[in-house]
Amino acid sequence: MQLEPTTAGGRRFVEIAEAHIEAFRARAAEHDRAGSFPSENFDDLRKSGAVGAFVPEDLGGLGLESVQDWSTGIERIARGDPSTAIALNMHLAVSRNVAQSLRGAQARGDAEAIARGEGMLGAVASGQLLICATATEPGTDFLRPNTTATPTADGWSISGRKIFVTMSPVANLYALNVRAPDPEGGPDRMGFAFVPVGTPGVVPQDDWDALGMRASGSQSIVLEDCRVPTGSVQLVGTWGEWNPGVLMGRTLGNVSLIGAFLGIAERARELAVAGARKTTKPKYDGAIAGASGVQHLLGEIDIALAAARASLRDATAAIDTLLAHNPEPDLETAHGCMRDYQCAKWTVNQNAIGIVSRAMDVCGGGAFMSGHELSRLYRDVRAGPFMQPFSPTEAREYVGRIALGLPPKG
Amino acid sequence: MQLEPTTAGGRRFVEIAEAHIEAFRARAAEHDRAGSFPSENFDDLRKSGAVGAFVPEDLGGLGLESVQDWSTGIERIARGDPSTAIALNMHLAVSRNVAQSLRGAQARGDAEAIARGEGMLGAVASGQLLICATATEPGTDFLRPNTTATPTADGWSISGRKIFVTMSPVANLYALNVRAPDPEGGPDRMGFAFVPVGTPGVVPQDDWDALGMRASGSQSIVLEDCRVPTGSVQLVGTWGEWNPGVLMGRTLGNVSLIGAFLGIAERARELAVAGARKTTKPKYDGAIAGASGVQHLLGEIDIALAAARASLRDATAAIDTLLAHNPEPDLETAHGCMRDYQCAKWTVNQNAIGIVSRAMDVCGGGAFMSGHELSRLYRDVRAGPFMQPFSPTEAREYVGRIALGLPPKG
Amino acid sequence: MQLEPTTAGGRRFVEIAEAHIEAFRARAAEHDRAGSFPSENFDDLRKSGAVGAFVPEDLGGLGLESVQDWSTGIERIARGDPSTAIALNMHLAVSRNVAQSLRGAQARGDAEAIARGEGMLGAVASGQLLICATATEPGTDFLRPNTTATPTADGWSISGRKIFVTMSPVANLYALNVRAPDPEGGPDRMGFAFVPVGTPGVVPQDDWDALGMRASGSQSIVLEDCRVPTGSVQLVGTWGEWNPGVLMGRTLGNVSLIGAFLGIAERARELAVAGARKTTKPKYDGAIAGASGVQHLLGEIDIALAAARASLRDATAAIDTLLAHNPEPDLETAHGCMRDYQCAKWTVNQNAIGIVSRAMDVCGGGAFMSGHELSRLYRDVRAGPFMQPFSPTEAREYVGRIALGLPPKG
Amino acid sequence: MQLEPTTAGGRRFVEIAEAHIEAFRARAAEHDRAGSFPSENFDDLRKSGAVGAFVPEDLGGLGLESVQDWSTGIERIARGDPSTAIALNMHLAVSRNVAQSLRGAQARGDAEAIARGEGMLGAVASGQLLICATATEPGTDFLRPNTTATPTADGWSISGRKIFVTMSPVANLYALNVRAPDPEGGPDRMGFAFVPVGTPGVVPQDDWDALGMRASGSQSIVLEDCRVPTGSVQLVGTWGEWNPGVLMGRTLGNVSLIGAFLGIAERARELAVAGARKTTKPKYDGAIAGASGVQHLLGEIDIALAAARASLRDATAAIDTLLAHNPEPDLETAHGCMRDYQCAKWTVNQNAIGIVSRAMDVCGGGAFMSGHELSRLYRDVRAGPFMQPFSPTEAREYVGRIALGLPPKG
Repeated sequence: MQLEPTTAGGRRFVEIAEAHIEAFRARAAEHDRAGSFPSENFDDLRKSGAVGAFVPEDLGGLGLESVQDWSTGIERIARGDPSTAIALNMHLAVSRNVAQSLRGAQARGDAEAIARGEGMLGAVASGQLLICATATEPGTDFLRPNTTATPTADGWSISGRKIFVTMSPVANLYALNVRAPDPEGGPDRMGFAFVPVGTPGVVPQDDWDALGMRASGSQSIVLEDCRVPTGSVQLVGTWGEWNPGVLMGRTLGNVSLIGAFLGIAERARELAVAGARKTTKPKYDGAIAGASGVQHLLGEIDIALAAARASLRDATAAIDTLLAHNPEPDLETAHGCMRDYQCAKWTVNQNAIGIVSRAMDVCGGGAFMSGHELSRLYRDVRAGPFMQPFSPTEAREYVGRIALGLPPKG
Repeated sequence: MQLEPTTAGGRRFVEIAEAHIEAFRARAAEHDRAGSFPSENFDDLRKSGAVGAFVPEDLGGLGLESVQDWSTGIERIARGDPSTAIALNMHLAVSRNVAQSLRGAQARGDAEAIARGEGMLGAVASGQLLICATATEPGTDFLRPNTTATPTADGWSISGRKIFVTMSPVANLYALNVRAPDPEGGPDRMGFAFVPVGTPGVVPQDDWDALGMRASGSQSIVLEDCRVPTGSVQLVGTWGEWNPGVLMGRTLGNVSLIGAFLGIAERARELAVAGARKTTKPKYDGAIAGASGVQHLLGEIDIALAAARASLRDATAAIDTLLAHNPEPDLETAHGCMRDYQCAKWTVNQNAIGIVSRAMDVCGGGAFMSGHELSRLYRDVRAGPFMQPFSPTEAREYVGRIALGLPPKG
Repeated sequence: MQLEPTTAGGRRFVEIAEAHIEAFRARAAEHDRAGSFPSENFDDLRKSGAVGAFVPEDLGGLGLESVQDWSTGIERIARGDPSTAIALNMHLAVSRNVAQSLRGAQARGDAEAIARGEGMLGAVASGQLLICATATEPGTDFLRPNTTATPTADGWSISGRKIFVTMSPVANLYALNVRAPDPEGGPDRMGFAFVPVGTPGVVPQDDWDALGMRASGSQSIVLEDCRVPTGSVQLVGTWGEWNPGVLMGRTLGNVSLIGAFLGIAERARELAVAGARKTTKPKYDGAIAGASGVQHLLGEIDIALAAARASLRDATAAIDTLLAHNPEPDLETAHGCMRDYQCAKWTVNQNAIGIVSRAMDVCGGGAFMSGHELSRLYRDVRAGPFMQPFSPTEAREYVGRIALGLPPKG
Repeated sequence: MQLEPTTAGGRRFVEIAEAHIEAFRARAAEHDRAGSFPSENFDDLRKSGAVGAFVPEDLGGLGLESVQDWSTGIERIARGDPSTAIALNMHLAVSRNVAQSLRGAQARGDAEAIARGEGMLGAVASGQLLICATATEPGTDFLRPNTTATPTADGWSISGRKIFVTMSPVANLYALNVRAPDPEGGPDRMGFAFVPVGTPGVVPQDDWDALGMRASGSQSIVLEDCRVPTGSVQLVGTWGEWNPGVLMGRTLGNVSLIGAFLGIAERARELAVAGARKTTKPKYDGAIAGASGVQHLLGEIDIALAAARASLRDATAAIDTLLAHNPEPDLETAHGCMRDYQCAKWTVNQNAIGIVSRAMDVCGGGAFMSGHELSRLYRDVRAGPFMQPFSPTEAREYVGRIALGLPPKG
């Protein structure tokens, strides 16, 4: 009943993802301990072609398009190393956008945009280009970035501070949201900027030291008067307001992340089963699998896991169906899509947290030791509820207001 | 995000089901109060062709085959009247078996069986034949029926007592499980018997007076030396033991029932939204939909509803996929199938119960009055956990033992 | 570990309450079915002296003062009949107020008030006076009653509509909250009025037909220009605003009601244990108590029951301690007291609902029949969350705002 | 509504505990990071007299006797450092036993035992003697220790391996359970042994590296032919079987540990409130405390906290009451006492885990950083369910079997 790919591109991606599991798992404990970034995993992901998942096949990629299959591949990688799963997801989210833009450019015959897109995607497929997105800042929210893009004579100057910039230690390019003045003098705009790593003024902080997902490289980045050319900033809407494109982008950039937390749950369940079969106690005359309390916990694990799998499958399948028929949905449809994502995120996160905890119960005190994989998963899985947008302080109200036909809060 | 049909036969069935909702709802309160059976609903279901959902199109039916779509149609009917939904489901489960047998007979060219099957299904399609199944007895379980089929000179004599014989007030034929001697002198056998309503010795007890599902006609039936011809009893396995066919039949006969409880949740959610928009309170300066506590409850309802829908969709889609590739699964596969059903049943039931309760909270004290539809749904929804097989006293252990590779208990 | 009385008056009250359990239980099913009021229970409660629980011993009462012991006695009565428990609680809440007023009058030597109080309490102790309180109206909340008290030449004219007037079929006197003009021309006032049953203009609606608590007589009462003398209305604060006295009164009038829902849980647990020991199934080679799934459910029941008992004990013991040291707390303290009550109410109600449901699981399909006591308890227990003030749509926000030091909403 | 001491000795102990909170908290992060033992905390606890809590006042101690007050003091210390709280609890559990033995010796006038007890307690009060208890071994359970005590010419030889030996880095004396031959040739016996730290053959493993409670010094201890004099081993029952004394000792030695997890919850709630008032977001026009989602989470926190406090208070108050009237309960009573402890443990642990998680939600992504106190509490709080005896794999069945009158499993 595990998630399975549904498209040819998805099968390629998931198969590759599965092949990485063991090696990533073997490296996970040490990177977790040290808080170091698993660059060798990204070497492997370049070699296997996973980094080019969203690149069309004719440009050397895997031709993945399905969001459902994307989340399934992320789920598999998380069985090996959840940190790597969310780091890869970051790059895939941006490269998926580039591929989508290329399809748009091809449709309208925009040669320049085609060339630019093909160039970037070719670099992605060859492993030369790794892109990380960052949309989080301290003290504000996604719709209201304080990082500014100020027009200059020949482009833009970008200044601000981004946090939780996952995968940044190996990225070549940052994609970030900014606040920019409106060229027409209207209210400030929301913009998206590409800033190459190494641009003068970009200062990675090397400050990622967290409870879990310690190998995800989610450091802060300070930007001070970073100069980028005109084409590097795209204005996409009004600062502080949802518009359909920004909202869909927010869903599409984050929904597959849920896969990582499902993958943690899948792995925790494997460990619980293995632990229950291996551990013996005299009072059970053999393996503790024979204890009814252990059987009840496994039953609870599998019930929660089935619901988590179904929830992720449903939310992502709905997005694939929507995009196939309506690639540019209106604002209400986009909020419906975000609502579905938020519902799935809530169920998967809560169930995954519960599954890891029950797996620890099954495995007993040994699971509390630092050397036990479950003690890492317990820390990694807690990252889920913090994922953007709409934390547990906001998600229920957001979903409820949509149900009631009230304007959602930003 | 509601469940939608996935096949042509399913679309026919679900469309018909939707057309029944309003009329059934209009009659539900009175039948609930009186504990009477809504025969007029079955008149409607005969006219609309819903009773012939599983009959092939060339025999006058809807040509439904998908289990997923079956459960979707049951979900829709439950929005009108949950009692009618589970009553219809009973008939569909048995007529689906007859259609499956006909396909088998056609495949092996068994003219007599073809004629018998076509005869029954023709009668089903025309609305002349309504079949109810009964497999529950006091003080024992499905695998160990105490109702006996004893060979006679020209057939069988059947005696025993069945309970929860849903839909029996309008059925023409009972399908029941029995204990029968093995013709070869081996251990006793499990058998399935068809007994026409009105057979001498069959005494319906007219004793259905329950907390909920009061219009489902789930009375007891006493059978005393009921004589049926030889072909009316089919021996299918050993009494007290699972075998693949019996186990698959148990899953297929009950999984779509979950749809009824999802339908209750869907309806409760509609009532909560409507209530929140309609009810005003001075302290909220208008509709209580503006109260953050109401919004939180609606958020919780929609999160739970999304997981319930996904769980039912997943479990039934998996069965459709399995049957398409492997119509006669082995025992282990059949247990896996039952496990998936049990997981979905647990999640849907628990979530549906929670959704109804939260909808009552939203609607306030009025929802506690007998005349409020939610007060009926609160009673109806509680039937879910009792549904066969594996109640909450057994389901977790069953699922857990399968996860651990231990032999499931019966 | 059940709740036990802690004072002499409490012991008297709880002992009497326990003596009523069996007789009340014997009558409960029929009154539930018919929706009739168990007047014979109130005859018994008059004879036993339970109605005079809060009357001082020297006036012929039981001398109960402890709120904790009060809730314990209500818990016991609910084991027999929850409807009677909440009906009696209504009368006790008002007679407790009268006793408290008498103590105040005695303290300040107010002979007239002493005489009035002694008169009422003497009538209460002798069983001649039963008082019911009503503070609920459709479309508004407790702080904003639309029932008006208008001054007349020689008293007041009262008009309005009250709902959920529990115990009203046997009461001699209604106590209700009203909106009245301020004598000084300020903002409208909140007032409390006593209206004798039978006053011209009072029209009981005989409309109580609910999901549960069907024997509580909680009909609506319409008041049309009911004339009462000057002393029958007491102005206590500003309409629409909490003040310490009104807020404490709200807590004190309702907190012991939680006992009724704990009593339901206690009874459900008894039925689960008895059912598990009595019911046999061949697959368990005897009683289902031997099934590990049943043992798990009983474990879950007892864990939830222990938390519910502790929560009620804690909240009521805190009130007893507070009142002993600070009988007239300020507004902040009164909100703290209400917060404690709301926390206990939430835990007891949620746990009691879960306990009844698990007890039904243990007892199996028989518990779904109308004749099974659990099917009544399932309906009765759902009344808990509706109890005033602060339903589940409001309670979390109320408690949270106090925690955060924000002004609580009304 | 926090727990407050109820006796004079308790007030002394709790007051001292409160005075330690800030200093312990200031040291906690560094010891957690390093996994080092906070010896300076134990210096402070010696100076303050906390280590002599159970020593009678006339021997220089605090004269604590109440189990409820003991758990309250542990709760307070856990607000500063949960690791120190459970480490101190270990010592207090054993010194409480010594004080109890002294009272027994005094009652029967056993001069030698009085002298021995007074000697030990004097050393405890002066801070010279710190005792840690250890009853956990890999691959077996408390009732079936594999550590052996073998009689020698002049005493005993002890060999085995103990794990989770909390506080062992500063202890002078180990108290451990052992398996010993029966002097009369009957079945093997359970014994309790005192082994001085530094006894030849005792090898601390310095292997404590865990997810949480990292400063508790819970390393393993290997014992190889450790020689102790005759009086150092006391035989108390049959190996593998509960008897009243061993069972009561098990409850009394562990119930106060729950206080540490309640203390974590209390501290997490403080951090949530402070975080909500301090953090501002433009979209809330100020502090996030104004967000309804934050208010709902705080409401959920306070509801869960109230139930946790009440559960611990109830279970420990019941023990104090029991011991006051019946210091040597029979086996059934002792199982009832353990059942109460298990119920409280379950509720406190589950609620504390939920409270910490909600506090993290309130505080946002910052709470996921290693430097945030909540990220440590998230790890510390997970130790609760592992605490002996009866983990979540066993507790429900244990409680359920007692409810059903079945013999509890060991």
